[in-house]
Amino acid sequence: MTAVREAVSRALAEDLGPLGDLSASLVPPQFVGAAELVCRGRGVMAGRRCAEEVFAQVDSSVELVWERDDGDPLEVGSVLATVEGSLRSILTAERTALNFLCHLSGVASITSDFVAAVGSATRVLDTRKTTPGLRALEKAAVRAGGGVNHRGSLSDGVMLKDNHLGALCLETAVAEALRQWPGRLVEVECEAPIQVRAAAAAGATVVMCDNMSPEQVRACAGLLAGSSPRPLLEVSGGVSLDNVAAYALAGADLISVGAITHSAPALDIGLDLTRAELVS
Amino acid sequence: MTAVREAVSRALAEDLGPLGDLSASLVPPQFVGAAELVCRGRGVMAGRRCAEEVFAQVDSSVELVWERDDGDPLEVGSVLATVEGSLRSILTAERTALNFLCHLSGVASITSDFVAAVGSATRVLDTRKTTPGLRALEKAAVRAGGGVNHRGSLSDGVMLKDNHLGALCLETAVAEALRQWPGRLVEVECEAPIQVRAAAAAGATVVMCDNMSPEQVRACAGLLAGSSPRPLLEVSGGVSLDNVAAYALAGADLISVGAITHSAPALDIGLDLTRAELVS
Amino acid sequence: MTAVREAVSRALAEDLGPLGDLSASLVPPQFVGAAELVCRGRGVMAGRRCAEEVFAQVDSSVELVWERDDGDPLEVGSVLATVEGSLRSILTAERTALNFLCHLSGVASITSDFVAAVGSATRVLDTRKTTPGLRALEKAAVRAGGGVNHRGSLSDGVMLKDNHLGALCLETAVAEALRQWPGRLVEVECEAPIQVRAAAAAGATVVMCDNMSPEQVRACAGLLAGSSPRPLLEVSGGVSLDNVAAYALAGADLISVGAITHSAPALDIGLDLTRAELVS
Amino acid sequence: MTAVREAVSRALAEDLGPLGDLSASLVPPQFVGAAELVCRGRGVMAGRRCAEEVFAQVDSSVELVWERDDGDPLEVGSVLATVEGSLRSILTAERTALNFLCHLSGVASITSDFVAAVGSATRVLDTRKTTPGLRALEKAAVRAGGGVNHRGSLSDGVMLKDNHLGALCLETAVAEALRQWPGRLVEVECEAPIQVRAAAAAGATVVMCDNMSPEQVRACAGLLAGSSPRPLLEVSGGVSLDNVAAYALAGADLISVGAITHSAPALDIGLDLTRAELVS
Amino acid sequence: MTAVREAVSRALAEDLGPLGDLSASLVPPQFVGAAELVCRGRGVMAGRRCAEEVFAQVDSSVELVWERDDGDPLEVGSVLATVEGSLRSILTAERTALNFLCHLSGVASITSDFVAAVGSATRVLDTRKTTPGLRALEKAAVRAGGGVNHRGSLSDGVMLKDNHLGALCLETAVAEALRQWPGRLVEVECEAPIQVRAAAAAGATVVMCDNMSPEQVRACAGLLAGSSPRPLLEVSGGVSLDNVAAYALAGADLISVGAITHSAPALDIGLDLTRAELVS
Amino acid sequence: MTAVREAVSRALAEDLGPLGDLSASLVPPQFVGAAELVCRGRGVMAGRRCAEEVFAQVDSSVELVWERDDGDPLEVGSVLATVEGSLRSILTAERTALNFLCHLSGVASITSDFVAAVGSATRVLDTRKTTPGLRALEKAAVRAGGGVNHRGSLSDGVMLKDNHLGALCLETAVAEALRQWPGRLVEVECEAPIQVRAAAAAGATVVMCDNMSPEQVRACAGLLAGSSPRPLLEVSGGVSLDNVAAYALAGADLISVGAITHSAPALDIGLDLTRAELVS
Repeated sequence: MTAVREAVSRALAEDLGPLGDLSASLVPPQFVGAAELVCRGRGVMAGRRCAEEVFAQVDSSVELVWERDDGDPLEVGSVLATVEGSLRSILTAERTALNFLCHLSGVASITSDFVAAVGSATRVLDTRKTTPGLRALEKAAVRAGGGVNHRGSLSDGVMLKDNHLGALCLETAVAEALRQWPGRLVEVECEAPIQVRAAAAAGATVVMCDNMSPEQVRACAGLLAGSSPRPLLEVSGGVSLDNVAAYALAGADLISVGAITHSAPALDIGLDLTRAELVS
Repeated sequence: MTAVREAVSRALAEDLGPLGDLSASLVPPQFVGAAELVCRGRGVMAGRRCAEEVFAQVDSSVELVWERDDGDPLEVGSVLATVEGSLRSILTAERTALNFLCHLSGVASITSDFVAAVGSATRVLDTRKTTPGLRALEKAAVRAGGGVNHRGSLSDGVMLKDNHLGALCLETAVAEALRQWPGRLVEVECEAPIQVRAAAAAGATVVMCDNMSPEQVRACAGLLAGSSPRPLLEVSGGVSLDNVAAYALAGADLISVGAITHSAPALDIGLDLTRAELVS
Repeated sequence: MTAVREAVSRALAEDLGPLGDLSASLVPPQFVGAAELVCRGRGVMAGRRCAEEVFAQVDSSVELVWERDDGDPLEVGSVLATVEGSLRSILTAERTALNFLCHLSGVASITSDFVAAVGSATRVLDTRKTTPGLRALEKAAVRAGGGVNHRGSLSDGVMLKDNHLGALCLETAVAEALRQWPGRLVEVECEAPIQVRAAAAAGATVVMCDNMSPEQVRACAGLLAGSSPRPLLEVSGGVSLDNVAAYALAGADLISVGAITHSAPALDIGLDLTRAELVS
Repeated sequence: MTAVREAVSRALAEDLGPLGDLSASLVPPQFVGAAELVCRGRGVMAGRRCAEEVFAQVDSSVELVWERDDGDPLEVGSVLATVEGSLRSILTAERTALNFLCHLSGVASITSDFVAAVGSATRVLDTRKTTPGLRALEKAAVRAGGGVNHRGSLSDGVMLKDNHLGALCLETAVAEALRQWPGRLVEVECEAPIQVRAAAAAGATVVMCDNMSPEQVRACAGLLAGSSPRPLLEVSGGVSLDNVAAYALAGADLISVGAITHSAPALDIGLDLTRAELVS
Repeated sequence: MTAVREAVSRALAEDLGPLGDLSASLVPPQFVGAAELVCRGRGVMAGRRCAEEVFAQVDSSVELVWERDDGDPLEVGSVLATVEGSLRSILTAERTALNFLCHLSGVASITSDFVAAVGSATRVLDTRKTTPGLRALEKAAVRAGGGVNHRGSLSDGVMLKDNHLGALCLETAVAEALRQWPGRLVEVECEAPIQVRAAAAAGATVVMCDNMSPEQVRACAGLLAGSSPRPLLEVSGGVSLDNVAAYALAGADLISVGAITHSAPALDIGLDLTRAELVS
Repeated sequence: MTAVREAVSRALAEDLGPLGDLSASLVPPQFVGAAELVCRGRGVMAGRRCAEEVFAQVDSSVELVWERDDGDPLEVGSVLATVEGSLRSILTAERTALNFLCHLSGVASITSDFVAAVGSATRVLDTRKTTPGLRALEKAAVRAGGGVNHRGSLSDGVMLKDNHLGALCLETAVAEALRQWPGRLVEVECEAPIQVRAAAAAGATVVMCDNMSPEQVRACAGLLAGSSPRPLLEVSGGVSLDNVAAYALAGADLISVGAITHSAPALDIGLDLTRAELVS
């Protein structure tokens, strides 16, 4: 909640500027309006609480009635919510509310596309490749789209990547990680089967196959079959809507996709004024 | 500069979390490393000052030597900068620095694609459809990509859109805007030639043709030919890399494209470790 | 709204200090009071939303009923508002609320004096010479006093002053400004008629006559007569209540006065307790 | 130091806006400049640390050499400091640095005028009537001007004003204040000699004569003569440069003047460019 | 109030982390719960406003009914408040609310123990040895426990300690302090009777006997007997529940104890769920 | 690093107050001093980076030379660091630096006591019962004392406590948690052996025995012996320095102790001035 409040406050401050909304101030204050938040594409909704907070911070007397909620599918023409209140306030809040809804629904939508393409129990994960300052909101949008969250921050768990393994011995590092951070995720990014075997033997919670083909992943899954406890198998790198199902079939428990946060196109959502009238 | 410092500080706080970088802390502090920031796609660079600030905030003793600057073209394999210093610090700063570089270079790159596609003196403009909290940085990335900035905030100028004109008379509103905000941009979003004529007659600085075909734009440009002073003609809505040249040829002075900020895919930039060694 | 909330929160934090209001805490909490915000001078009101926010942040159960609004004239004895609620809360909020009202009404009042002295369609403008941290609020107070706002920040428009022209060629700089910032204000500070002519020819939106006598301004206005489009003519420097009408008569469209923000004496407004009683 | 850093950061953010300094960006980055901060009036300097911090935050490579320090007298033509470095940076920092210097030197100057007019050991005090958000800086400017500081916040000491005494018995309230806040200032605002006597008898640290004539103050001073310990006698309300010496002669130990913070005209200080050249 | 709001907002942000409350999100949102805040030890309550603010920030629809208030004694089993509302919200707010209540009630409780042990009119004072970031709240907890507050910050009054007196002459420093800060606390930390005498003669408001035995304090109290005005006598250093009464009997007006803020054990307070049910 | 900078900045702001350090300002600015940070008790050091940051923010020219580092044992008389520079700055920074060092070293010291008392491979864990606003710093102090960190925030992992299990079925909740948060900690607080068995069977990562005797813990450990994978066994509630070894012997892998953060007495560390002299 703090995350929503602060992100909205920051966004409004940057959009209002030092003089406020010059255009809306031309509208007489007695005007009231009604409007709809309407989807102009297909996707999955996210960002409702941000949009609510935008209107609340601009003018708490504006009323929103939500027809859809985060996680709901949206079609062309779907009405997300109706808005009613001071026309000035609606016009001032419009763009900031939409910027949140369009971006976060964009993240939820592409996540949902990957989840649909997987078509199995394999889970779609996000990464730490999020837009600076919006991690909490984007991670929530990933959940709205049916994905699951990988690490929220560097302090959530240990992940040993190629750049770490340039300096550390894999086995020792995993053992030390388990000792220092009992019960937490200890994941190893592997570029070859030999690392997969070593990571599993060392007790890693998750073994990640990085930039491998589905065939290579299948081979790695085979290597893990006998491990006890068997680590989860994550696939990352080079994953697209076209090949994600192949990775799932190859034995991945988890498939992480940076693009669902760093390259999600905005979902087109607009605000259509349905009524504007002077109130005495 | 405040904008860079605060955005970086916020991004680092969200990535470090309450316990710091669990993984990097497994690396002995005596390790030093050298690395390169390498491009793995094609595009235009932006975000250098953010990346600099990330490393500076994590560890001011890490040294960056920049090979490229904002606005420079990048190819697959281009080295943006070399990094040298504490390996722990490099690993901790890596993702946050890359998140800025990849996102902002993504914005610069797609802007540059639109500028190239226009192929004339017509300027490519951004919009207020920016990622919440990153407006200043994204607007700078648009400039790095060769675009120009539309309003930075609602207080930069007056823009009368369809939702405003639902309540206001166009002519009166333009006159009042010129009176209240002398010398500033007064722009009118027009959906029909009759509005274009009215806006020009009322003295608007910019007339915007919204969601029109290139042919309709050409007709509107004709209507403006005789105006004195002639307002600038902006095109917005439905613009793509395929049709942007046609809009330019049709007489647009300015073409604004929301997608260059709200839907720019990240440019793929990575950090490759080139050396890691223990220093006594 | 963010600007008001944050300025008030900052002001209350600095006035409450670490131990809160020692004096008010001597008043039993069961006391309720009624009070009036009363003007003890003549001027124009500004700062209502700040005062409201002060009381709301101190104690949202205190009730304010406003008799006047921003922009209204105030006489000695005018009651701006009545206040009713916990006496402790009223006493704690008093000074901070008054500090906003007195300062911002001071700005509105002196602005209004200049507007009255002009006595024509010439507009009175503020400058960027505002009190650090209070720009948004002071610019709103200028509008309440009947003035209009010059740039809100350095990113609102281009203004080439003598210090810029020490390094730049006027004509080239104006042309470049128009190219980089289409549709925005491009203003040139001129110290001699030759610069006025050059700025107009180059296409400046506003030509500013800096530190000239009314006669010199009249000559410059003559130079602009034939320009198409004719830039607006702004006068700045050495303007006082005594000579502002002469500048307006000389042909100024706009007269900017730093003193209305940087040297406005506070308007004397106080809080008079009209009732205090114990409620069981 | 935190106060300076944050006030400057806030002021720069509000002046730079979302797009930065449009005008300075027209100056080629290779230009270096030299300039002087020059006084154009008479007064006392304050705000040096703020101005330093402005230049440091804009560009830490700009060099300032100070010729004067806070508390020094300034004449027309006095050079406060010389500035040398990137011309862009100097132009961008100029207005914000001057806004601090001019406002705070204005406060110091009028304080100094009151101190000079007093012409005795009687001290000139400020009040809590400061500009919202700038209390720490204005209180420091008062000290630079030779004044002393009254309460920094409501938690510094107890002050019983007429609005408190509408609900409290003076004697009981003073006793309770001494009990709850041992060793702190306990001051009573008195409107009649009877209150002065009561406050002294109750053990108040300071007795304030509010809105009295010098003759009335003299009478109150007489009442205090026999008190042991004798409280300090403060005068407040209706004090001007013309009558302040009379109040001092009448026996005031302290004279508090709201106008030195709430109505101080800015001291005119400018930045004159002395050199601008391209450096290859 | 700002202090409470910001401390709570900070605490919630650090406890919620980037992904929010993973555990509570497993509870269906339709569950409502009722719970009690119950004391499991003996002590004095403090922190009510913080706990209120925690629940309000998490979910303003959760209802709290307080049975006790700050300053009230608590026994094992005392119910401080009942809580009712969304079970998710109650679970999410629980720990942060308790962290404030337990810590601040711990401060109030140990303060109350010292006050009880003193058993006379001698007052128990806190120090500036508070937990970083929580000074305002801890000072309020000290008051709730029956103690009084020493300086809130370095700007409340002058205190000359051994480290100051290493560079300053005691008599000159006290005189200068009285001149620069009229009416404020001027306290001297004394390690020997000779300093006590000097401080009193110089006019110090409070004389502090540092790290002396009760006998030494008694001797110092004797030295002050004849002073006019007689400064307050404060004892500090080496004070415990066992010897505090002896110091009071020895003539201390004030006894300051760092441990009541820097080493107060938390008071054990928990949240017991009394009902959880699905609401359709 | 952000956490340190912000906590220090906040602590300094609250200690400096609006007028700064009244006492230090009595010391002529030409005085330089040397001092030592000296331990007056026994324990383990923590908080070095905070103390460094305090001096750096007050005056970056003060030099610190550290003799000890976080995690080092301290005896009575141990010198942590020497300090040299402006005497004013040293005096102003002293208390805030010490407040961090004493509190955080207190946390490290009691943690270290528990670790020593355990005397085996069983790890001592902290909890979320931290001081509001200081979680990151206290968690680092726990590590300095040889402990390990439990959850940093509610978003680190799932922990099902009695209040959750009032509404949820243990088996279903664990399964759902594993599905939604693959690879993360899923812990169950158990009050009876039957829950221990169920939690292990459901696949919990950690099973916590809450408020059990060592004998009960031993029985629970027996129940887990056959699980594959065997969850970690955590003990919590009622743990003291006297019984912690018994719990370890009973089979606990992890023992969490709230008191190491919520009730750690400060370690007594002081700043002793070793030299003070005027420098011309």
